[in-house]
Amino acid sequence: MEESEKQRDSNSSFGHISHLALDIGGTLIKLVYFSRKDDSRFLDDNQEEVSCDSSSNNLILSGRLHFVKFETCKISQCLEFLSSKHLHHTGVWHNEVPASGKNIVKATGGGAFKFADLFKDKLDIVFDKVDEMECLVSGANFLLKTVHPEAYTYMDGQKEYVQIDHNDLYPYLLVNIGSGVSMIKVDGENLYERVSGTSIGGGTFLGLGKLLTKCKSFDELLKLSHQGNHRAIDMLVGDIFGGLDYSKIGLASTAIASSFGKVVSENKELDDYKPEDVSRSLLRMISNNIGQISYLNALRFGLKRIFFGGFFIRGHTYTMDTISVAVQFWSKGDAKALFLRHEGFLGAIGALTKYKSDGLYNLTVPQVVDGFINSSLEEEEDPVSDTIECSMQLRPQ
Amino acid sequence: MEESEKQRDSNSSFGHISHLALDIGGTLIKLVYFSRKDDSRFLDDNQEEVSCDSSSNNLILSGRLHFVKFETCKISQCLEFLSSKHLHHTGVWHNEVPASGKNIVKATGGGAFKFADLFKDKLDIVFDKVDEMECLVSGANFLLKTVHPEAYTYMDGQKEYVQIDHNDLYPYLLVNIGSGVSMIKVDGENLYERVSGTSIGGGTFLGLGKLLTKCKSFDELLKLSHQGNHRAIDMLVGDIFGGLDYSKIGLASTAIASSFGKVVSENKELDDYKPEDVSRSLLRMISNNIGQISYLNALRFGLKRIFFGGFFIRGHTYTMDTISVAVQFWSKGDAKALFLRHEGFLGAIGALTKYKSDGLYNLTVPQVVDGFINSSLEEEEDPVSDTIECSMQLRPQ
Repeated sequence: MEESEKQRDSNSSFGHISHLALDIGGTLIKLVYFSRKDDSRFLDDNQEEVSCDSSSNNLILSGRLHFVKFETCKISQCLEFLSSKHLHHTGVWHNEVPASGKNIVKATGGGAFKFADLFKDKLDIVFDKVDEMECLVSGANFLLKTVHPEAYTYMDGQKEYVQIDHNDLYPYLLVNIGSGVSMIKVDGENLYERVSGTSIGGGTFLGLGKLLTKCKSFDELLKLSHQGNHRAIDMLVGDIFGGLDYSKIGLASTAIASSFGKVVSENKELDDYKPEDVSRSLLRMISNNIGQISYLNALRFGLKRIFFGGFFIRGHTYTMDTISVAVQFWSKGDAKALFLRHEGFLGAIGALTKYKSDGLYNLTVPQVVDGFINSSLEEEEDPVSDTIECSMQLRPQ
Repeated sequence: MEESEKQRDSNSSFGHISHLALDIGGTLIKLVYFSRKDDSRFLDDNQEEVSCDSSSNNLILSGRLHFVKFETCKISQCLEFLSSKHLHHTGVWHNEVPASGKNIVKATGGGAFKFADLFKDKLDIVFDKVDEMECLVSGANFLLKTVHPEAYTYMDGQKEYVQIDHNDLYPYLLVNIGSGVSMIKVDGENLYERVSGTSIGGGTFLGLGKLLTKCKSFDELLKLSHQGNHRAIDMLVGDIFGGLDYSKIGLASTAIASSFGKVVSENKELDDYKPEDVSRSLLRMISNNIGQISYLNALRFGLKRIFFGGFFIRGHTYTMDTISVAVQFWSKGDAKALFLRHEGFLGAIGALTKYKSDGLYNLTVPQVVDGFINSSLEEEEDPVSDTIECSMQLRPQ
């Protein structure tokens, strides 16, 4: 014990932080890490902060999980953040002592491969790569079982938290909307299959949005869409039928017949359209398409519940409403869209749970968590999206 | 007979044309009409051109079916064409005499409702409206059973005509890609159901394409896409994984992870991108999406064959290739994409076949038809896409 205490002291400025996990996607880097309750002191004798489960000899740490994000194209900001918080020294810790190597960190997403050398060179961090789909599933399962409330429905302006029965969670469809979209059938804790996906995702929204409007960021584009009217851009059934419904096949006159179809017959330039209308139309096109393909895959495997995650959603009401309506419309009310409060961090949390083999025995969230997390990526914002109280049970190695 | 002969003479400049049918969509107007073999003479005694089936007393006319298209936003061109060809006098003809009213014309598509008054006012044409889905199905069934060769596969630059066994045609999925997309499960001659669709169709390609490039027309945008490289715009799996495949889930490094996703992280304006790359990426995004949703619907109903129609395709090799690859990829080779030579005219031909109740007993195409039809909509082009030899059997009313 003497050795570990010495180590602790020498690391006093960062010894309170541990278990860093990264999910490096095509557009965003998501981090999750744990901090002990007290930032400056190490209180072995304080039952609330560090305790020992005498029956199992496991160490229990109370603290918080931190959720942080950066744009992948601004990876240097991420490196600086890690460096300033001394997070690059905080891979796996057992009993406050670095285990297999102080700089081995769980990482997932394509960037765990692409940027492995960069993290090694700049921060001396070695990635222990974990499969992306595995992390998404583990992250979703963890959130659904541990954080309350985590899942909710959103329709017609109404958010409703959903109580998840742990014995009746599987099977479900997990749809992760990042730059692209992955659809995973989840049958159990570690039983899953990526059954589909689409390239029309968050990257399409921002990529096309940047080209079509003056917006530079996802948040700006989303904000813009609030004030927009998609009917100025989309060809509706009523536009084709002269204001009538196509009643024989149940298409209302307000249904979109062709996204961006109104532009075809108008003799206008891009500048003649309001960017807010363009943004709204784009968001609707993409959300609706994801909702439809998700439903078709849920139907294929008889799944009634579809959980949507990924940073595309960002608690944005119009996005969720469109996805919910799409799922309801195509399933005739048979399937349900559910959303996750920590939607953007499924992969990173999943990677964090993979420290299990390194002594992380259990993670629990003791308190009811409320409010939406900060999903914004505005320059001036803190990169920390959220923190939640958490208790970590560590098994001596 | 004397009366009808007089009528014939007085109509000599246009008496050879009959059975006009229109399909007025959101973007295009499609016409089909019949002309007797000889333009200037009426040869009762020429067995090849007009004959009488003595057993049934049906009149058999030899001639050609004409396929013509206009942009819906240039509807005046269509009105002028009809007027100049005296087609507005050529609704239903029985034994060369106008039947229930010389100006009653079969029409389908939303524009049959929207523009009914315009056609009545300008040309004294009264639309006999026929349901759009019914017409698409009738048109596809007619082409598949009557015109040879009509259906073909297209993959890796190889076009292969497919022999259709009339006794093994049903069930199939018909995907009509117009401004929007309709997906219809066809179980028999008049047995069908619209099971799905998507608003991301031809109107989206041209609408977004017009906003993103200087192109004014569909053909221009398509031509541009020939020279494009979508990899300059799309985020590939390899872009995220640093050039590696995501081998665990079978995604090649060249697979598109996010359509338009590369734009997100680049500090560029619209003008910095080549319009040909943008066009190619757009075409690929839309074709791939339609292929995927089509397959998911085919799977849902156990349909192995998917016929793609509608003016979006236009015999364009890259479009067909992408759709074929999407269907093959998602179905793991289980389902097949087939294309139709008269792809854009399903609705109009279907409407034409609806003259059955007005005495049109049978339509046959005696000869093997070859070559692609002209699907271009360039200003300078003849609006007539194609003509094919045809024989019409009329039942005396």
